[in-house]
Amino acid sequence: MFQDLKERVCRANLDLKIHGLVILSWGNVSEIDRKSGVIAIKPSGISYDDFRPDDVVLVDLDGKVIDGQLNPSSDTPTHLELYKNFPEIGGVCHTHSPYATMWAQAKMEIPCLGTTHGDHFFGRVPVTRELREEEILNNYERNTGKVIVERLTNLKTLENPAVLVACHGPFTWGETAKAAVIHALILEEVAKIALGTWALNPGSEDISKTLLNKHFLRKHGKNATYGQKK
Amino acid sequence: MFQDLKERVCRANLDLKIHGLVILSWGNVSEIDRKSGVIAIKPSGISYDDFRPDDVVLVDLDGKVIDGQLNPSSDTPTHLELYKNFPEIGGVCHTHSPYATMWAQAKMEIPCLGTTHGDHFFGRVPVTRELREEEILNNYERNTGKVIVERLTNLKTLENPAVLVACHGPFTWGETAKAAVIHALILEEVAKIALGTWALNPGSEDISKTLLNKHFLRKHGKNATYGQKK
Amino acid sequence: MFQDLKERVCRANLDLKIHGLVILSWGNVSEIDRKSGVIAIKPSGISYDDFRPDDVVLVDLDGKVIDGQLNPSSDTPTHLELYKNFPEIGGVCHTHSPYATMWAQAKMEIPCLGTTHGDHFFGRVPVTRELREEEILNNYERNTGKVIVERLTNLKTLENPAVLVACHGPFTWGETAKAAVIHALILEEVAKIALGTWALNPGSEDISKTLLNKHFLRKHGKNATYGQKK
Amino acid sequence: MFQDLKERVCRANLDLKIHGLVILSWGNVSEIDRKSGVIAIKPSGISYDDFRPDDVVLVDLDGKVIDGQLNPSSDTPTHLELYKNFPEIGGVCHTHSPYATMWAQAKMEIPCLGTTHGDHFFGRVPVTRELREEEILNNYERNTGKVIVERLTNLKTLENPAVLVACHGPFTWGETAKAAVIHALILEEVAKIALGTWALNPGSEDISKTLLNKHFLRKHGKNATYGQKK
Repeated sequence: MFQDLKERVCRANLDLKIHGLVILSWGNVSEIDRKSGVIAIKPSGISYDDFRPDDVVLVDLDGKVIDGQLNPSSDTPTHLELYKNFPEIGGVCHTHSPYATMWAQAKMEIPCLGTTHGDHFFGRVPVTRELREEEILNNYERNTGKVIVERLTNLKTLENPAVLVACHGPFTWGETAKAAVIHALILEEVAKIALGTWALNPGSEDISKTLLNKHFLRKHGKNATYGQKK
Repeated sequence: MFQDLKERVCRANLDLKIHGLVILSWGNVSEIDRKSGVIAIKPSGISYDDFRPDDVVLVDLDGKVIDGQLNPSSDTPTHLELYKNFPEIGGVCHTHSPYATMWAQAKMEIPCLGTTHGDHFFGRVPVTRELREEEILNNYERNTGKVIVERLTNLKTLENPAVLVACHGPFTWGETAKAAVIHALILEEVAKIALGTWALNPGSEDISKTLLNKHFLRKHGKNATYGQKK
Repeated sequence: MFQDLKERVCRANLDLKIHGLVILSWGNVSEIDRKSGVIAIKPSGISYDDFRPDDVVLVDLDGKVIDGQLNPSSDTPTHLELYKNFPEIGGVCHTHSPYATMWAQAKMEIPCLGTTHGDHFFGRVPVTRELREEEILNNYERNTGKVIVERLTNLKTLENPAVLVACHGPFTWGETAKAAVIHALILEEVAKIALGTWALNPGSEDISKTLLNKHFLRKHGKNATYGQKK
Repeated sequence: MFQDLKERVCRANLDLKIHGLVILSWGNVSEIDRKSGVIAIKPSGISYDDFRPDDVVLVDLDGKVIDGQLNPSSDTPTHLELYKNFPEIGGVCHTHSPYATMWAQAKMEIPCLGTTHGDHFFGRVPVTRELREEEILNNYERNTGKVIVERLTNLKTLENPAVLVACHGPFTWGETAKAAVIHALILEEVAKIALGTWALNPGSEDISKTLLNKHFLRKHGKNATYGQKK
């Protein structure tokens, strides 16, 4: 049942470790099969060393476990909130990768200081507001999803495939689990470079809209020229 | 004699190297068998390349060598002091991992700036006072244990499994040697992220008690929901 | 056809990954055969994992594809502009390596703060001006080459084998593709050390012209004494 | 002829690469056989990938090549100056490791901010004065040795086994080539931790003389208790 989906999600989770984005059992990635509404996600607190496709948990959009012996990630309700509100996305990734987490803890957007950033994120990487006391006390993980959705209002998710949850860390997404992980890796690199840029030149401003358009749109959208024909 | 204990302690020490927390022969990990009062600890100044379970030294709570051809770690009296005063702990780890040591040398607590920290440490990572002249001159290693114990007064050791010894570096602990090493690894990651957060935003404050409770208690204690049933 | 050239260019591109200068499909390296005017370059957006010599694309100095099934790197017009204006160079390399990119995004030259720098770059690593709006909108990649050429006016390219494109990242070159990659690696190390030097001592000045001459000229030029007779 | 010496020196040079202290062909290590006055040193500009014991060059204290097909390191006269003036040392190592080089380029001593430092260096890591114009123009490499010797006046070399050459980088030494390399590795770690300590707390002062004595002397000298009986 959904064997391909499980294998893709297992592989995407293992890639977090290979890319150096997580330590121990940190991080989680999921992918949704939109036709059936089935979501495959990493089990909670499992070691990457032992992680196999059969360990992947299947849940529905209400969070009910459909298949799997293990508990799903404790962040599952956050993932579900994103899938429900962003019908265009197919994969979600959450890490505590160090440089992105520094910006999240500083409660600062990542400025768009260069083309490395503009090649992949169509503007600043946004940061959510902090959750209110009652949002933490009840349905915390679901409310984490809600503040992300709130922050993405008026932004296109596939052009802005990353957000920093204030005091917490990054969530990224894409059309697949694999794409979500790639965005997490790029975000970490961009976060590191931005930190060093501001250390050198605290007054550095974001690149011009013209330069951002040029770089983002040569890689994305119907006029993209980057890469190979598919 | 205590072969399992020796193997666990050997493995835990080797993990320091695998996790990149130590260079050369730096660092040491021990575990206590509470029934017999026997402590297994790394020998002093031994290379990780050659380190085998049979090299592990067994000492009693007075520091007397019970078994082993080699001298125990010079930090043994510090470990003993912790085992004597914290009956709930089973393993102790000491490293000079760079980011945690930066905070120790700066004589600053590590602020609790995000949920990565709050998932594992129930508040700031405390720093000891500096040892007094006479505490350095006589029974230095034992006094290092004493200032740790003094600093942990009114804190629960299993909720605060790490301390920074001022001008020195981190000690961590847990129910086993393995747990102590995992806390050393997490501490290093948290120390790195905190340093970067303050570089970006020197005014960043600790997360709210509500958020800290939510994160720490979903992972620890009787109402924990994280991970798998055991 | 040009099999040796393709193999050298493939190897040079793979070295970017081995040296840790790029993630994903980032970066590109080319080499020119001056006799025929044929340039071998990495295809656009290809994964390093699958990259083979037969994937290398051959283009002429007008950018026309001569051989190869894949699209050439989107940065090809920048490479061409450098080959056309700098007849003494044989290889070009472009990365977004983090430390060099920090300086590029800060729009600051890398000061020549020590002999590590002076051994390889005969003075500060220059930074281009930002491209003007119309230069971005039309022939962007070619204009990127043009601002590099403009910035190198009055500099000798083989003594200054690196430039930072403002808001973008480094381009390096040399007599071969391999040499261009080596300069990219050295540039990244020099950029990292310079950042830390200024963090420690913001007032650090460039080394004296006498010390720079001594170091650069013992490694380069007709009186070089470094290395082995060839 | 001196086969053991060549093998030790080859191994020590390769360790620079394994420890991540050098890139490309950077760095050099030598060892002296005091009975014969023969020094074994790395050839100039050779790749670590191909480096074999038979490539090691033997020179006498005047720098005359006694054995070997290759040119000795261009830094040979610096090594010789140290061997001539410090009869108690047996090995010398030079790198441009990034963190130590940051301090050298900042022309700042590395303060002794913690016990990690005090375990290995008996006080601050000194920095030389800059070479004068005429010292650069004539016999530069030998004069580099002379300013090191000048700076070490009134310091014991085996208690202070490292120096920073201003605007250049670190030289370390010890009783053997292997010891010199170990000091280079420790120096790099200490330099990194000190940089972060001052980033956190610019006012951090050196540790007390009492604490320094305790740590250094438990590892070195006739009353040392660290390690195993030999």
